[in-house]
Amino acid sequence: MEKLLVDKVYGESIKVKVKDIIIGGKEKVIISGPCAIESYESLLSIAKELKKIGVHILRGGAYKPRTSPYSFQGLEEEGLKIISQVGKEVDLPVITEIMDTRDVEKAGNYTDIIQIGSRNMYNYSLLKEVGKTKIPILLKRGMSATLEEWLYAAEYIMAEGNQNVILCERGIRTFETYTRNTLDLNLVAAIKEKYRLPIIVDPSHGTGLRELVPKMSISAICAGADGLEIESHINPEKAISDARQTISIPQLVKIMEDVKKFTMYF
Amino acid sequence: MEKLLVDKVYGESIKVKVKDIIIGGKEKVIISGPCAIESYESLLSIAKELKKIGVHILRGGAYKPRTSPYSFQGLEEEGLKIISQVGKEVDLPVITEIMDTRDVEKAGNYTDIIQIGSRNMYNYSLLKEVGKTKIPILLKRGMSATLEEWLYAAEYIMAEGNQNVILCERGIRTFETYTRNTLDLNLVAAIKEKYRLPIIVDPSHGTGLRELVPKMSISAICAGADGLEIESHINPEKAISDARQTISIPQLVKIMEDVKKFTMYF
Amino acid sequence: MEKLLVDKVYGESIKVKVKDIIIGGKEKVIISGPCAIESYESLLSIAKELKKIGVHILRGGAYKPRTSPYSFQGLEEEGLKIISQVGKEVDLPVITEIMDTRDVEKAGNYTDIIQIGSRNMYNYSLLKEVGKTKIPILLKRGMSATLEEWLYAAEYIMAEGNQNVILCERGIRTFETYTRNTLDLNLVAAIKEKYRLPIIVDPSHGTGLRELVPKMSISAICAGADGLEIESHINPEKAISDARQTISIPQLVKIMEDVKKFTMYF
Amino acid sequence: MEKLLVDKVYGESIKVKVKDIIIGGKEKVIISGPCAIESYESLLSIAKELKKIGVHILRGGAYKPRTSPYSFQGLEEEGLKIISQVGKEVDLPVITEIMDTRDVEKAGNYTDIIQIGSRNMYNYSLLKEVGKTKIPILLKRGMSATLEEWLYAAEYIMAEGNQNVILCERGIRTFETYTRNTLDLNLVAAIKEKYRLPIIVDPSHGTGLRELVPKMSISAICAGADGLEIESHINPEKAISDARQTISIPQLVKIMEDVKKFTMYF
Repeated sequence: MEKLLVDKVYGESIKVKVKDIIIGGKEKVIISGPCAIESYESLLSIAKELKKIGVHILRGGAYKPRTSPYSFQGLEEEGLKIISQVGKEVDLPVITEIMDTRDVEKAGNYTDIIQIGSRNMYNYSLLKEVGKTKIPILLKRGMSATLEEWLYAAEYIMAEGNQNVILCERGIRTFETYTRNTLDLNLVAAIKEKYRLPIIVDPSHGTGLRELVPKMSISAICAGADGLEIESHINPEKAISDARQTISIPQLVKIMEDVKKFTMYF
Repeated sequence: MEKLLVDKVYGESIKVKVKDIIIGGKEKVIISGPCAIESYESLLSIAKELKKIGVHILRGGAYKPRTSPYSFQGLEEEGLKIISQVGKEVDLPVITEIMDTRDVEKAGNYTDIIQIGSRNMYNYSLLKEVGKTKIPILLKRGMSATLEEWLYAAEYIMAEGNQNVILCERGIRTFETYTRNTLDLNLVAAIKEKYRLPIIVDPSHGTGLRELVPKMSISAICAGADGLEIESHINPEKAISDARQTISIPQLVKIMEDVKKFTMYF
Repeated sequence: MEKLLVDKVYGESIKVKVKDIIIGGKEKVIISGPCAIESYESLLSIAKELKKIGVHILRGGAYKPRTSPYSFQGLEEEGLKIISQVGKEVDLPVITEIMDTRDVEKAGNYTDIIQIGSRNMYNYSLLKEVGKTKIPILLKRGMSATLEEWLYAAEYIMAEGNQNVILCERGIRTFETYTRNTLDLNLVAAIKEKYRLPIIVDPSHGTGLRELVPKMSISAICAGADGLEIESHINPEKAISDARQTISIPQLVKIMEDVKKFTMYF
Repeated sequence: MEKLLVDKVYGESIKVKVKDIIIGGKEKVIISGPCAIESYESLLSIAKELKKIGVHILRGGAYKPRTSPYSFQGLEEEGLKIISQVGKEVDLPVITEIMDTRDVEKAGNYTDIIQIGSRNMYNYSLLKEVGKTKIPILLKRGMSATLEEWLYAAEYIMAEGNQNVILCERGIRTFETYTRNTLDLNLVAAIKEKYRLPIIVDPSHGTGLRELVPKMSISAICAGADGLEIESHINPEKAISDARQTISIPQLVKIMEDVKKFTMYF
């Protein structure tokens, strides 16, 4: 590989600032919320709970990349407005996924972090477009992306001038079908070793199984992750999508306590 | 899976008409040309050769999805103009890849078929956008897409009203590193068995090795493929990208002769 | 890689002689029979049919490597005796799988070819043991073996003095779950290009789906295969194991006719 | 799946006793030593160091399953004698790999635990043979084995009467080539959730990169592992095999200290 902006050889580790939250600093950052934004009321009620327990950033999907065109595709721009409004009311920065180059400018009015999902990691037009903004970008790993491809995807954003890139490992596609994906914590350790970007882990998609989320959350932190993105819901069984991997508020509280205990040793 | 437009249960097999070429009919369709459009002169010189030997459709990349942002990204709109102009001069329909929703409308002025590349198979915004046109779409399989995900990607296009969808198997990502990808001809046979869409095979990306292209071309036809997309070049060793998998004109002539011989038995 | 016995640089292509059958010669060799030997009577009845239609070698499993210890494990030595007896009665060479180093010597009394199954490709003790005999060995590819590992497994046998090695591609393990395995015909073409060993293809395990076996059989031959190993049964639906991928005698007849037609062009 | 001995529904979690070490109890068990036994002197010198720093079990390979038949295959029975002798001298239980059914009885005289390597996880003859002993068995996961296949492999041993089975996750084969394997900690969490067997993790093979071993060791413990198997050497750069993933004694000391700190919270 040529000399890259993502490489530690190039410069210091990058810390991404989102309002008063630092991603890549000492404190581990917790991003949580429902998979999809279902309504203003339901998002507000979960956001209040998340704020109360100390979650740092609120997540929620407005544009949902669903396998079938006949599945619920998200509330779209209406969803952007809801999460923006809810974030202000509970005083939490928000993150949401954008999938179309034409929505990037608009998104800047509504979200504090733009998420590039796994399915769009190779969408170089989109990467270049978000690279022209100064908005922090959470770049999920493609489901079969190699370390090199993932880093180059980050480089696409940085080469346009936006250094606020956060990587997110969310599991890769393998032959194993017991779990939805195989969480690849090896790369978390590798990235902290050699590269400049902060990295967080999504144990919800990384396992697909609610009962594995607590252990894999701590495991991710010990592999070096700077934070976690976890799907939570007031009533996980009733979540519109990804119910099987969504945890409840009390389960999230327990994970956050454990993260603090283990973090003492770093 | 719900009842889908791609399913044979829904209706007859689809034949896609591109000028006077039928994809999905009796005759196997050969699409060929360089990986990237390098200049008007070089594309014209290869296009003349391809026309002479009976190739049906001219391919060439104007927008190139490269792993590194520092690699040659294609001639972009200038490339679209070149391939359109060359196609007219040699009287061949042309195909080129589009990666950004904002380029779809423009592309309609220049190309006879829009190619959606492997990296954008999950780019649902782009699929919906091309679904709103009537332009034939060649939809490559994502590098780790399951049959179900691939068919649903086609369904995204068809659900918007564009039935002119051609699938293209181009190899999947596996643990095997000897070949660039693993060409999955199983799915070619499966798709011809149960689904309505024509399917062609790209043995260039499917193997990554020039010396395997002739055998895998015939093998693909026998698995049921309706045609082939093959990277060729007047001087393969000097191709700007993908040189290792690019074949020469005489090699292409030999493959086309073999395809004709074997097709007699279907 | 160091200089290897499997390499064409080392010497001429190897033809393996089994009684009066040549594997690796002009004629494509068809190996067929049931997955498991169920009884003398049932094997004899299918063997007579197979002989009649021109199958070259009779297969049948005596030792069955089953995922669960509670599944039928085969008739074991009794099965060896049955296949040996049936082979003599119908005048067909026979092939059966051996899994234990302690059974190799015994097997020499009963079978004309020893099959090393996918699960034992890395069982180097077994490879060395069969390498000390002169019995032809059919070496299936491990389910996630690279080309290099597979060739070295063959080399283990040849280094002990037994040059009668036949490779068998039977599909690899990938993320795709629609088919049981992904048949990797790329490697068939690659092996014919550079290596000395004959190679046959098993489209039954390679697809896991009976309806894909005919197309993939021809496809394999066109990729360069020297023959096919196909699971067949008088009454496929009633096969004790692998019923879903087993074909009937009339289906096999059709495949053999097609193989002959296509072979005319090589 | 049918009702299995490995399932928690069947009975309590299994603790495997090796001399006075308990695997599956409160204390995390550390297994360490060189990849291959090189000589009596070198093994003794590292064993003394390992004993001094509190390692619980000494590992060392006598029979080495190497990809090439021309690579060093281990000291074989001479190696068994060496590790047995060294174990006694330094008062540490020992573990070594057995690959051939004919070596199982002999191994009982020399080793406290028999390791079944990744390449032999599907070697059902070997599994049955070790199942007939009472020797504790460390069963490594096959390089592309699913959870179900791995558990059934354990079941093969237990069904013969030997309940002393320890699982060992050592990374799976995926498309990612940056690391030697992809360590699948998801399954560690899954196994502790639902199954009875103790499980340890091998971060040396699981990453293939020495610099990732410390973080992945702690990460494995937090995912629920009952211990670690780590390749160490007095002089890692000079190890005969697997040098790239072997750590030094001081590095091992640091890992063991961290394991103790983190274990306080379970």
